[in-house]
Amino acid sequence: MLQLHNYWRSTSSYRARLLLTVKGLPYDYVPVNIKEHEQHGEAYRRISPNGFVPTLVDGDLVVGQTVNIAEYLDETYPDNPLFPRDPAGKVRVRGFVNSCIGDVQPRTQKRVREYIDERFSRDVLIEWYQFWSAEGLSILENLAVQDRPDGAFLHGGAPGAGDCFLVAQLYNWRRRDVDLSAAPTLLSIESACLDLPAFIAAAPENQPDVGQDDRY
Amino acid sequence: MLQLHNYWRSTSSYRARLLLTVKGLPYDYVPVNIKEHEQHGEAYRRISPNGFVPTLVDGDLVVGQTVNIAEYLDETYPDNPLFPRDPAGKVRVRGFVNSCIGDVQPRTQKRVREYIDERFSRDVLIEWYQFWSAEGLSILENLAVQDRPDGAFLHGGAPGAGDCFLVAQLYNWRRRDVDLSAAPTLLSIESACLDLPAFIAAAPENQPDVGQDDRY
Repeated sequence: MLQLHNYWRSTSSYRARLLLTVKGLPYDYVPVNIKEHEQHGEAYRRISPNGFVPTLVDGDLVVGQTVNIAEYLDETYPDNPLFPRDPAGKVRVRGFVNSCIGDVQPRTQKRVREYIDERFSRDVLIEWYQFWSAEGLSILENLAVQDRPDGAFLHGGAPGAGDCFLVAQLYNWRRRDVDLSAAPTLLSIESACLDLPAFIAAAPENQPDVGQDDRY
Repeated sequence: MLQLHNYWRSTSSYRARLLLTVKGLPYDYVPVNIKEHEQHGEAYRRISPNGFVPTLVDGDLVVGQTVNIAEYLDETYPDNPLFPRDPAGKVRVRGFVNSCIGDVQPRTQKRVREYIDERFSRDVLIEWYQFWSAEGLSILENLAVQDRPDGAFLHGGAPGAGDCFLVAQLYNWRRRDVDLSAAPTLLSIESACLDLPAFIAAAPENQPDVGQDDRY
């Protein structure tokens, strides 16, 4: 059985859960309480030497990084593809997910937020978060619009890896009141996703370790 | 003929050139002067809607994001593999390159450096750069050590995508005097790479648009 070590509210954990539910793959949910810094404990460091969450375990294989998880799942379990099979489609969706993890999320991720909060102040953190979120929103909207095929989702008539990454990122922005009105394409894709059983099953509020959390 | 739109000194451009030279693929070098903000001009925005450098063009296909470029090249041109063919090796090298683009580089990339320099000061920027670089160095060293097979390179006896990403990142750190002594494994891999013709051909100082540049 696949195992996902993750935390209900982390953006990258949410992405990884969505990859699994969109693929239709059952998995064991192993909570890692990053609020209590459990990811830096010795046990977890054995599977993730940097204490990063989430980590997927499939038998002997330990898979870190959500794009890596997406590629691994898609190559190993062919049903319900996460990436298009044609080269142009694949390039388009991979470009989108790599922009999510490389351009958009890192600038406001937890580790960076904590650093800015401590080194400067909560006000500077909020300014920082809002600035980079607005830029990130524009980056993803531009990519979503470009060469978009017909269909309600990022790339056609069924959800794939790009939709998983997008929905998790929008959740991150929503809970901290980012103005999303400049991204009508992203919002329309999100609304096509949110009612699907796979997206309901992976939603943060439906996880076993749901609880109180800090805003930043 | 493949075309690479890139800038001699950008870390991600250097990565993309290395992917091409390690694959043994000839390409047209199309310089994009990011010092003069050429990436935001109308012409370049037609191929990269967010003005990101580098971009690979292969006939009708436009490929942004360096991990996307690596996957595309490896699937399209099978000689000189960038990723191992066995699932465990693939997961390991993909984990490494995704950490380079997701955890390590974004925190100190040009856009972020410019923002901090303007919003705070040069001193804050240097403190920021050194702090995250030390953390990034430790992240990559931990990944390189974990489950490393025999051989001088990141993953065995020939260079692949991980080595390309690593060498470009170390160049970024070296030119701003980051103390690299805590990463003996990374340094040993780098020294196996740097004398190879593919790495010499892709080096920043050997590009046609080499010139003066700012330190930060």
